[in-house]
Amino acid sequence: MVESFDELTKPNMSFKGFTFVRQASLAQTKKGDPFYHLTLAKKSTHIPAKVWSDQLNGREDEAQQTLKEGNLIYIEGDTSTYNDSLQMTVRFFRTAKEDEVNLEDFLETPPEPIQELTVEFERYLEEIKDPLIQTISTAIYKKYKSHFVKYPAAVSNHHSFTGGLLYHSVCMIRLGKDICKHYPSVNQDFIIAGIALHDAAKVMEYTNFSAPSYSLPGEFIGHISMSSMLVDREVQIITKERGQPLSSYEHEAVYQLQHCILSHHGKQEWGSPVEPKTLEAHLIHLIDMIDSRVNMIDRGLDQAPEGEFTKVFPLGKLFKPHSK
Amino acid sequence: MVESFDELTKPNMSFKGFTFVRQASLAQTKKGDPFYHLTLAKKSTHIPAKVWSDQLNGREDEAQQTLKEGNLIYIEGDTSTYNDSLQMTVRFFRTAKEDEVNLEDFLETPPEPIQELTVEFERYLEEIKDPLIQTISTAIYKKYKSHFVKYPAAVSNHHSFTGGLLYHSVCMIRLGKDICKHYPSVNQDFIIAGIALHDAAKVMEYTNFSAPSYSLPGEFIGHISMSSMLVDREVQIITKERGQPLSSYEHEAVYQLQHCILSHHGKQEWGSPVEPKTLEAHLIHLIDMIDSRVNMIDRGLDQAPEGEFTKVFPLGKLFKPHSK
Amino acid sequence: MVESFDELTKPNMSFKGFTFVRQASLAQTKKGDPFYHLTLAKKSTHIPAKVWSDQLNGREDEAQQTLKEGNLIYIEGDTSTYNDSLQMTVRFFRTAKEDEVNLEDFLETPPEPIQELTVEFERYLEEIKDPLIQTISTAIYKKYKSHFVKYPAAVSNHHSFTGGLLYHSVCMIRLGKDICKHYPSVNQDFIIAGIALHDAAKVMEYTNFSAPSYSLPGEFIGHISMSSMLVDREVQIITKERGQPLSSYEHEAVYQLQHCILSHHGKQEWGSPVEPKTLEAHLIHLIDMIDSRVNMIDRGLDQAPEGEFTKVFPLGKLFKPHSK
Amino acid sequence: MVESFDELTKPNMSFKGFTFVRQASLAQTKKGDPFYHLTLAKKSTHIPAKVWSDQLNGREDEAQQTLKEGNLIYIEGDTSTYNDSLQMTVRFFRTAKEDEVNLEDFLETPPEPIQELTVEFERYLEEIKDPLIQTISTAIYKKYKSHFVKYPAAVSNHHSFTGGLLYHSVCMIRLGKDICKHYPSVNQDFIIAGIALHDAAKVMEYTNFSAPSYSLPGEFIGHISMSSMLVDREVQIITKERGQPLSSYEHEAVYQLQHCILSHHGKQEWGSPVEPKTLEAHLIHLIDMIDSRVNMIDRGLDQAPEGEFTKVFPLGKLFKPHSK
Amino acid sequence: MVESFDELTKPNMSFKGFTFVRQASLAQTKKGDPFYHLTLAKKSTHIPAKVWSDQLNGREDEAQQTLKEGNLIYIEGDTSTYNDSLQMTVRFFRTAKEDEVNLEDFLETPPEPIQELTVEFERYLEEIKDPLIQTISTAIYKKYKSHFVKYPAAVSNHHSFTGGLLYHSVCMIRLGKDICKHYPSVNQDFIIAGIALHDAAKVMEYTNFSAPSYSLPGEFIGHISMSSMLVDREVQIITKERGQPLSSYEHEAVYQLQHCILSHHGKQEWGSPVEPKTLEAHLIHLIDMIDSRVNMIDRGLDQAPEGEFTKVFPLGKLFKPHSK
Amino acid sequence: MVESFDELTKPNMSFKGFTFVRQASLAQTKKGDPFYHLTLAKKSTHIPAKVWSDQLNGREDEAQQTLKEGNLIYIEGDTSTYNDSLQMTVRFFRTAKEDEVNLEDFLETPPEPIQELTVEFERYLEEIKDPLIQTISTAIYKKYKSHFVKYPAAVSNHHSFTGGLLYHSVCMIRLGKDICKHYPSVNQDFIIAGIALHDAAKVMEYTNFSAPSYSLPGEFIGHISMSSMLVDREVQIITKERGQPLSSYEHEAVYQLQHCILSHHGKQEWGSPVEPKTLEAHLIHLIDMIDSRVNMIDRGLDQAPEGEFTKVFPLGKLFKPHSK
Repeated sequence: MVESFDELTKPNMSFKGFTFVRQASLAQTKKGDPFYHLTLAKKSTHIPAKVWSDQLNGREDEAQQTLKEGNLIYIEGDTSTYNDSLQMTVRFFRTAKEDEVNLEDFLETPPEPIQELTVEFERYLEEIKDPLIQTISTAIYKKYKSHFVKYPAAVSNHHSFTGGLLYHSVCMIRLGKDICKHYPSVNQDFIIAGIALHDAAKVMEYTNFSAPSYSLPGEFIGHISMSSMLVDREVQIITKERGQPLSSYEHEAVYQLQHCILSHHGKQEWGSPVEPKTLEAHLIHLIDMIDSRVNMIDRGLDQAPEGEFTKVFPLGKLFKPHSK
Repeated sequence: MVESFDELTKPNMSFKGFTFVRQASLAQTKKGDPFYHLTLAKKSTHIPAKVWSDQLNGREDEAQQTLKEGNLIYIEGDTSTYNDSLQMTVRFFRTAKEDEVNLEDFLETPPEPIQELTVEFERYLEEIKDPLIQTISTAIYKKYKSHFVKYPAAVSNHHSFTGGLLYHSVCMIRLGKDICKHYPSVNQDFIIAGIALHDAAKVMEYTNFSAPSYSLPGEFIGHISMSSMLVDREVQIITKERGQPLSSYEHEAVYQLQHCILSHHGKQEWGSPVEPKTLEAHLIHLIDMIDSRVNMIDRGLDQAPEGEFTKVFPLGKLFKPHSK
Repeated sequence: MVESFDELTKPNMSFKGFTFVRQASLAQTKKGDPFYHLTLAKKSTHIPAKVWSDQLNGREDEAQQTLKEGNLIYIEGDTSTYNDSLQMTVRFFRTAKEDEVNLEDFLETPPEPIQELTVEFERYLEEIKDPLIQTISTAIYKKYKSHFVKYPAAVSNHHSFTGGLLYHSVCMIRLGKDICKHYPSVNQDFIIAGIALHDAAKVMEYTNFSAPSYSLPGEFIGHISMSSMLVDREVQIITKERGQPLSSYEHEAVYQLQHCILSHHGKQEWGSPVEPKTLEAHLIHLIDMIDSRVNMIDRGLDQAPEGEFTKVFPLGKLFKPHSK
Repeated sequence: MVESFDELTKPNMSFKGFTFVRQASLAQTKKGDPFYHLTLAKKSTHIPAKVWSDQLNGREDEAQQTLKEGNLIYIEGDTSTYNDSLQMTVRFFRTAKEDEVNLEDFLETPPEPIQELTVEFERYLEEIKDPLIQTISTAIYKKYKSHFVKYPAAVSNHHSFTGGLLYHSVCMIRLGKDICKHYPSVNQDFIIAGIALHDAAKVMEYTNFSAPSYSLPGEFIGHISMSSMLVDREVQIITKERGQPLSSYEHEAVYQLQHCILSHHGKQEWGSPVEPKTLEAHLIHLIDMIDSRVNMIDRGLDQAPEGEFTKVFPLGKLFKPHSK
Repeated sequence: MVESFDELTKPNMSFKGFTFVRQASLAQTKKGDPFYHLTLAKKSTHIPAKVWSDQLNGREDEAQQTLKEGNLIYIEGDTSTYNDSLQMTVRFFRTAKEDEVNLEDFLETPPEPIQELTVEFERYLEEIKDPLIQTISTAIYKKYKSHFVKYPAAVSNHHSFTGGLLYHSVCMIRLGKDICKHYPSVNQDFIIAGIALHDAAKVMEYTNFSAPSYSLPGEFIGHISMSSMLVDREVQIITKERGQPLSSYEHEAVYQLQHCILSHHGKQEWGSPVEPKTLEAHLIHLIDMIDSRVNMIDRGLDQAPEGEFTKVFPLGKLFKPHSK
Repeated sequence: MVESFDELTKPNMSFKGFTFVRQASLAQTKKGDPFYHLTLAKKSTHIPAKVWSDQLNGREDEAQQTLKEGNLIYIEGDTSTYNDSLQMTVRFFRTAKEDEVNLEDFLETPPEPIQELTVEFERYLEEIKDPLIQTISTAIYKKYKSHFVKYPAAVSNHHSFTGGLLYHSVCMIRLGKDICKHYPSVNQDFIIAGIALHDAAKVMEYTNFSAPSYSLPGEFIGHISMSSMLVDREVQIITKERGQPLSSYEHEAVYQLQHCILSHHGKQEWGSPVEPKTLEAHLIHLIDMIDSRVNMIDRGLDQAPEGEFTKVFPLGKLFKPHSK
């Protein structure tokens, strides 16, 4: 009998305890009986689960209230294998009471504390030397900070956890600063600010941080255009305050910053309306590739067997070497 | 002896008179002699021309002042053929005096008067029924009107003439309104506003209207993103004035309008960061294809021989039928 | 209890009445029991349905006769949801008697009466001024008229209903005539004749009009090549009657007409053996895109929820706005 | 001093004698002097040549008559190198008199006598066992025989010589018959007839056999569609004679034959409106690839240095090994 | 009652007898009951089969030993249809005793005896005239002969049977020798040796011959690179024995041989690190296409109905003509 | 009058002094006069130059000896502009005497001393912990060291200078080690060894270090396959010495190392026969992209004007910002 949901790793294990409802939908068997299809989670463990109709008879309303995305619930059930994947049959369920569990214990978070990542991120913003670029970056960060430190960097694939956006941004800046040390022609201001803002509008692209899906502006406009738009809004505010337009040099800097954001997918066919035309824009695209791929591979191989190939979407077959 | 520059259509014609310098650059022959390579123009007639060193000796400074993009000059010269194309040798040149010629007589303009197109365009804006969409469209138009009615819609290929942007927009709206008549599910507001704004930021993408090249924000951000940004600026102003955010219904409308703009190239690989997800966005892309292709083909075959195939960039070989 | 099959829109509805068998196949459950998988239809409503083995025992031959593509049948059953889609379980079935129902009440037809569309289409053919082009177009139409006015324009996706080919052709010509009004360089004869014939050989490409699938020549040759071939056959007849070949001018016209047909998919990779090389060929391709996309989107979003995105093959996610 | 034009292989060789004008165009030097740009040929030797204005003064009309595509002329001149290629300067020219030279001595022909290839080709047609397929193939061949045995198989790249179409077809059938021997499932009738007809309409696609360019139907319809159309014409004639349509089995055979023709470019993006769906259609495409590539490589490396890489359009760099 | 497993061609047939386990995996029903999913085979007949839990109760260990890839077993069962495919329910199973059956009777083999193909293959190696090329080819063949004559040429699609690699190689050489007869510029040595070695390292790419899957070096390096590496190893041995490097002429030959191997997929996007740069390399790629496609089509249509189209991966829809 | 060749930056400058002949070819003017087309160089300064026939008369043999790739020569000449590029006319030339100049002063070298880079590179090899991987890497390096430290990393575009291969490798390892610090799952051994060997066979791919072009094995096999082959040769030697094959663990390590080499172009279409399947293989590809792009951009913009866009092959338009 396993006590913590994230210890469920094999078929034929029994479980009694608490879990988080990541996804929930009501379906019907071929015979027409209703059942719930859930994704239950604790930290990085996600297991598809079924609640069959015998559990639902006479409790339809309760089920609808309880088996809902974002809820914490108590369940009893057993694991099995279906189509080569682990799944679960829930034999009993009820709502978790407020004093029984903490949401934080169930959400996956970065390997480093969010608080420390926040401090580190803010320190990087302070390192930006160009006053206008620093002002813009900091202003945007402050406006969206509460969301920025909690949102994931993607709905699935990589950094798809609480604080993923912050963690992804910090990891990229660390790597960006190393690169600046090696190549003196790189302007570190654009590396830091460009990375800090490249995915910033993900806070608008997703509906919420714990069970994110695409919002209306996310579908219609996308985070790339909205992140650039956030820069424009700050420029509008600044020029209004000043009562005069930016200087020619400042314009050049702002356009470069927006360009780093708009071109960070690297190619038009990958969603960037313009392709990289500065050294920093090229680098931010490649740094993004490195950090997201490492995260995809680490997560994709986390539970995979050693010495074998495992399919990890969207990278295909990946090998997990034997640990010595 | 031809008197108007646009009557030069064959090799071995002599010309004395006025012309407009569309492009100018100083080069050197293999022997090291300096010469000017020009593009001279009147209306839709563009002829490459050379001024050899014998015309330049002792007049280097005068040449530099006179043979400059955007100038009107007096020349004497003859046409010939080089690499299958018509070209010109300038045997004498001087600056045109202010009272000798009018710039308007040399710039190519739409087949309909700009004044009438302007009136027609404004009438279309008034036809937009949704008050917010109308307010935004009209506000942007008014801010940029002086440029909007003079800029071309492209640097080359199609509508690359004074007023081309206005003419292209009006032609597209005419077609869009026909389509709305045939298909009742189409929302005419988004058709009119989406077309009116889809290329609006070309006034920022090019450096000027008479000898346009790409500006810094044109290269770094592009007209697609900037046109959407213009909508955002109006929304910022409106919500500030109101002291409250847009309603949910208004948000849906504004996002759709921005989406029509951002997706009008039809595919990511053609430069749109998002691909069409509404009926109107799909239609604006296709209407743009129709109007730009007709213009490319009409212009490309204008001087072409009948009953033959002519290469017209970027469409390839095109046939000009015999007129009956 | 619902009385008309096309009122079945939700799970858990009961139905007794008549329906049309669009598709039918015999299958087996995992246990080995036989069952029928059907697509039942009335007008634009298509619902997948199952007839389980308990309905079939001892009635195997009757089932085979009754549950057949193209039949009208009487059923009793209930709707449910399976894999997020509506489906039906048939609890009783029998053949419909001839005097109980009319086939016309079950086939989906265009939003305008076929009779009126036919008149309109014929009027357009009369508007073709070039006598040879008119003769050819009219001759082909007359030979295949009985099929042309009943066949769909596609097996699925767009205009996949009785009379769809006629309706699609008329809608395209309407739009084509508008375009001719705006752009004087367009030759309306090729627009009308090219559209009238572009999909004409769909009457050979499909096996029948009410439950169409691809015919042998449809698979091996395709409607594009066959439509061009129909023109060639008329030319052979005309030159034989005349006892002399076409004039040079007539040849040019016929080749252009065949070219409009052969190039109407726009690109080789989309199935056209030649790509558009005339103004009219370019336009017919784009008009085809407009009319087919509007139809795909209208049909795809017809039952979709407002304010949400729905996947419509092959266009991807599409948004259905809130109606005011 | 070289006596036969095809012995000109190096710069700085002098030549007096006869040559064939493959291409001719009048151009102008930068200074405005007229000159002729020619391609002169004997057999597979093609050399670009210039006739400068000093040769033309006072002989303009004679030059226009003499320096014309398809003419045989007498010249005196010297070879040199320009942009790494051999070229020629013509220092004297005149028309060749009828009794001085034979056209046959100047046109490139296949490595085997056309007469023998014709006999071989006709023998293959007789080997077709299916009577209808044989009737159709033979009828088409007989109608176009005079052109079929003289036309090239391509304007450039491969088999671009007199009789190239016949030679290419025979070589492909030889290979096709070998393949039939190895693989018993292949139907030799379709291999022979499909190859015999696959490029047959090249006799319509090009303007003439000795200086071929694309004809109007070649541009608008293309040889692929026209070759299939030739089959259809024979079917129309046969069914008219019979007074009844083809049998079901005959239809299947004719559609397969047309399919072999229409799909022989292998992919839609390479110009086939349908892609291969029969074993024979797949094979004809691959046999075409083999025979055309061998010819391209043989011709492309014919004059190339051993032990080096030479660029051969469109195959890229190719190596010519040292002969032992 | 059918007695040989390969006579099972329809649903509702009963079978008692022996079969070969090609694939085996343990799964669970939705309810959680364990069952085996097998692929059972005799010769080219492969049928998916299920062993339900009622057969497994109390025999779990025996099942694990018996229902294993590569085993011969005795079964009793019945066929049915699932998702349009034939499948089988195993109602009894036991291990086959050694004296009851022969493995050879169950493995699919080439249509010609492996022994004869081996003799033929060796005769071809002897026909190679260049002594170095012959030495290398023969040495590699001898080292891997025991595997080379048993391995398949692919895991699925084409030549995926015992001896498939040998058979594929011999068929390709037969065709290659025909081509050499027709085209004198082709060097037969490289054709024979290049074909003999092009897939040689498939003996390292797969784990075994009867139930092949990809090996570690197969995934990481691939047969293309390993086949070229085998040549390099022989060169290392030869130069060591000689005590001196290859001659310049020998180097040229060895590089060409490795090039034929490395480029035989024809394009980089299809897995060749270099694209064909010699006549022989081009031909080997095309011969490989011919032999593999014929085999794919023959096998894919083997059981298909006549006069219909059948989907054959990866070629798409293929037509099987009526036999006369 | 400029004294050092690398100070020639503008047209109309005179020069007397020494220079290095990077490329040389004999050509002819349109009139047939011979001339030399050269690329003259000092360090990173490359200027195309012409030697006209008046300099060559009577000195043809001397010119052939002197104006040869790889030579140091004395010239007198002047710069001019041709097609927007700087070029030079050589008015006098002679061979440089041995005691007049040093080759080292003319070859471009890395920004850090080759000696220091060598030491650093060797230190990295020592950091490899896996003994087999270290042994293989070190053995290959030692065998090719004299070439490895002098060859360029590419013929053009990036690191195309003496020592470029070493410099590129060191820069990549520096970055790779940073990445290992940030991501603990990365195996540093494969990062160091994979980078050290990824381009190692460039010493075989090019003909020489100072005027490199592609060698025969470079064209036929390529550095990717040859670098992997170098690993295989060491494995052959090691197993022979040991008298037994590698252990299973060692095999896994060697295959991973070869995989890092073979997959480092990232995609099959970019020339890798296998695509990355390990974390380290993915990273080496991306690190290669970063270091090569930074070098391309730095070199491409080195002489470019600030505040403007410059075309840098193959990256397209790049912006060089104003320095503050």
